[in-house]
Amino acid sequence: MSHLISIRDLTREEAITILDTAEQMAATQNRGIKKLPTLQGKTVVNLFFEDSTRTRISFETAAKRLSADVINFQARGSSVSKGESLKDTALTLQAMGADAVVVRHSSSGAAHRLAHAGWMNLPVLNAGDGTHQHPTQALLDAMTLRRHYATEGGTPHAGTGLDGARVVIVGDILHSRVARSNVDLLTMLGARVTLVAPPTLLPIGVEAWECETSYDFDDAIASRPDAVMMLRVQRERMSGAGGGFFPSPGAYHFEYGLTPERFARLDPHAVVMHPGPMNRGLEICAEAADSDQSVIVEQVGNGVCIRMAALYLLLASEGQRND
Amino acid sequence: MSHLISIRDLTREEAITILDTAEQMAATQNRGIKKLPTLQGKTVVNLFFEDSTRTRISFETAAKRLSADVINFQARGSSVSKGESLKDTALTLQAMGADAVVVRHSSSGAAHRLAHAGWMNLPVLNAGDGTHQHPTQALLDAMTLRRHYATEGGTPHAGTGLDGARVVIVGDILHSRVARSNVDLLTMLGARVTLVAPPTLLPIGVEAWECETSYDFDDAIASRPDAVMMLRVQRERMSGAGGGFFPSPGAYHFEYGLTPERFARLDPHAVVMHPGPMNRGLEICAEAADSDQSVIVEQVGNGVCIRMAALYLLLASEGQRND
Amino acid sequence: MSHLISIRDLTREEAITILDTAEQMAATQNRGIKKLPTLQGKTVVNLFFEDSTRTRISFETAAKRLSADVINFQARGSSVSKGESLKDTALTLQAMGADAVVVRHSSSGAAHRLAHAGWMNLPVLNAGDGTHQHPTQALLDAMTLRRHYATEGGTPHAGTGLDGARVVIVGDILHSRVARSNVDLLTMLGARVTLVAPPTLLPIGVEAWECETSYDFDDAIASRPDAVMMLRVQRERMSGAGGGFFPSPGAYHFEYGLTPERFARLDPHAVVMHPGPMNRGLEICAEAADSDQSVIVEQVGNGVCIRMAALYLLLASEGQRND
Repeated sequence: MSHLISIRDLTREEAITILDTAEQMAATQNRGIKKLPTLQGKTVVNLFFEDSTRTRISFETAAKRLSADVINFQARGSSVSKGESLKDTALTLQAMGADAVVVRHSSSGAAHRLAHAGWMNLPVLNAGDGTHQHPTQALLDAMTLRRHYATEGGTPHAGTGLDGARVVIVGDILHSRVARSNVDLLTMLGARVTLVAPPTLLPIGVEAWECETSYDFDDAIASRPDAVMMLRVQRERMSGAGGGFFPSPGAYHFEYGLTPERFARLDPHAVVMHPGPMNRGLEICAEAADSDQSVIVEQVGNGVCIRMAALYLLLASEGQRND
Repeated sequence: MSHLISIRDLTREEAITILDTAEQMAATQNRGIKKLPTLQGKTVVNLFFEDSTRTRISFETAAKRLSADVINFQARGSSVSKGESLKDTALTLQAMGADAVVVRHSSSGAAHRLAHAGWMNLPVLNAGDGTHQHPTQALLDAMTLRRHYATEGGTPHAGTGLDGARVVIVGDILHSRVARSNVDLLTMLGARVTLVAPPTLLPIGVEAWECETSYDFDDAIASRPDAVMMLRVQRERMSGAGGGFFPSPGAYHFEYGLTPERFARLDPHAVVMHPGPMNRGLEICAEAADSDQSVIVEQVGNGVCIRMAALYLLLASEGQRND
Repeated sequence: MSHLISIRDLTREEAITILDTAEQMAATQNRGIKKLPTLQGKTVVNLFFEDSTRTRISFETAAKRLSADVINFQARGSSVSKGESLKDTALTLQAMGADAVVVRHSSSGAAHRLAHAGWMNLPVLNAGDGTHQHPTQALLDAMTLRRHYATEGGTPHAGTGLDGARVVIVGDILHSRVARSNVDLLTMLGARVTLVAPPTLLPIGVEAWECETSYDFDDAIASRPDAVMMLRVQRERMSGAGGGFFPSPGAYHFEYGLTPERFARLDPHAVVMHPGPMNRGLEICAEAADSDQSVIVEQVGNGVCIRMAALYLLLASEGQRND
């Protein structure tokens, strides 16, 4: 593994290695001293062309826990906004002696280009590119699911997948890199995924994805899933310029929200997931978000561990390219 | 002490412990190596919903001097601006493994909610909430006063208060969390405080505060105070949208500014204070700001020491909650 | 050397000492562990009144490689934007215990004032002030030239200058602190500089500079220079508010761009330079930018080494002022 761009680049074994490494990282985070010397002297650049404070500070925290130096490079107000090409930004970061680049970009494929265009010779970690992929999000979701599905909250055995788990993902699948990455990863790990969305929010060609689709959330709940993952509603899609994908917040909540009624119909062992930040009262009710079945906060903590694992595997193991 | 939210939560003994600890921190800052290993491996998050570069870099410097890692979380452009609730931000920071949160918010009470709503289990340091409190500012003011009132510039004996000191605070009391925090702290330490402001800039109910009030700065100077603290004029209050609290900069300076004439009438031992940033020529003349009686620059340095002390007491002493 | 404000403050010996020290720094950057303990416990403040992500992260990387702590102080949204004076910012940084200040400002002379007004007692590194100077840029250009002119890509002998080298600088000389700093430094090191620009983009009084000027890029190339340095075109100068300094991008490229035709006429040993970020297709064609003769990426890497050298010489050597 020389980059982490897309779940599709990973084999099942590689994905499970990341999950197992993340569990080892998690074990170190309960000690008095959470910091490891692993990446001392390495520099990780957070190259963010899109604002995302949550994802940025998760990667920043992960890198600092491993003792790396972190340089935050926000495209706003930078030479990028003066028209510098992605190529020249890449050449610049390599020349400055960066050891890895975490990139977030509004264009699908930007992370891939950065990694594979031959501009630089550094590991690239995709922190979200357009509507394409967000692999560390899918990995942290799988890590969270694995803990609950395989062991009901404990540390899973190394090597375990998600065979047999049934996961329902609900919401704006069309614009969601989180959904796309999760379908890829969860099915690879053996889970069965059902996507639930209004027809306007399902992508063309979704029939070819390795999952089921449904327009009816109640049906999906009746099938007794092990987990429901509620996606964030982008309010700007609702109407006006972004465009009328669904009629109103109330109508959306009624048809596709995790309401108290739907939440009550979930199996007691089923977990509730959300990539955050939540619109409480829109795609998810507070009762579900704050219940014992919610693993939303755990997802955030697991995110740091997954990012520590990815940085470790790309930078500190023997296969690294930039030494 | 498990948080630092409001001066009103502190006993006199606790306040003096912070001042004494800050003096110990100050003693370390004159050495060749200013950095202490105290908080190695800890992560301090600066959660700033309001811009304040000065306060942010003071806390950041303090945390780094104690070898903590610092994550800057500006609300602008973050998930907060996408509508994330304070609750979910709190849950996120705890889940990411933060060890303390420094918060600045435009709403009075935000720091208290963050600390006490049960969302997270981390020490909270209030870096200013609405018009409510700014406790580290009051503590650095008290530290500065104690040095000059009790010892004329040397290190005060541990345990000393400000008994008998007379302090005049001048300016926009109505909107000032600095004034509010200072009245609370200075009176608790035994000082007598007089607030001087035009009637429009005194809060309703100020009669109940433990201090005197006056509309006449010259009267207050005639009473021979040990210190005058000039508050910053928020120019946006002056007229237009913010609203007509006083007629013009010239009129304000004439009636409530520390003019060269007023400055000349101060006792030679009296000190001149300002929380910064100053509007030179508006609330304070350059002669006063740059004089030997000015302790304004000292206040800034003491600010770092107070914040080191607060972080130390909340994170490194035995009573800490998050280990 | 107590500051680095302008090339004009340096003697030839001092300039060469910086270049030689930067070569030593470069030698450390090829090791597995690039970080040096030199500035442990020191705090470097990046005080940026103008956005410049590239320059900021180059200084930040340099300081962190030397184990200093870095505080980024962006003027946007800071007390500066509330009207704080440069003087009070200086007093604040010194009081907070900063050990050095890297400053970028839109006003020519701001760095000099910060260093010499008596406000603070800290080394100042000028990261660009108005149209005046950008000394670390000129030094990294000289370092790059020295490597290629004196040794064809290897490490030059300590003490070497650029005697006899012929350098052509092309573009907006009028607004360029890079051109100004380079004329000063390169001529001091013994090179012969020719400035090429349309008459509207040459400053009044350029006749007094120690260099030749020309309106004809083809003539300059015919003289067989050892290096051509292409300056960035500020698109906002082109027309409208910024003003009509040249008629159109196409016309500029045709007359003053490094086109494939002109690039083909360069001597094979000549190097192509650009301070970045480039407008590919405007002042420079991709063929030239990406060719073997291009040292543009090397310039970026040398920039980190020059800034490490400057920080080292100002902060870690015996002559330092702030211990």
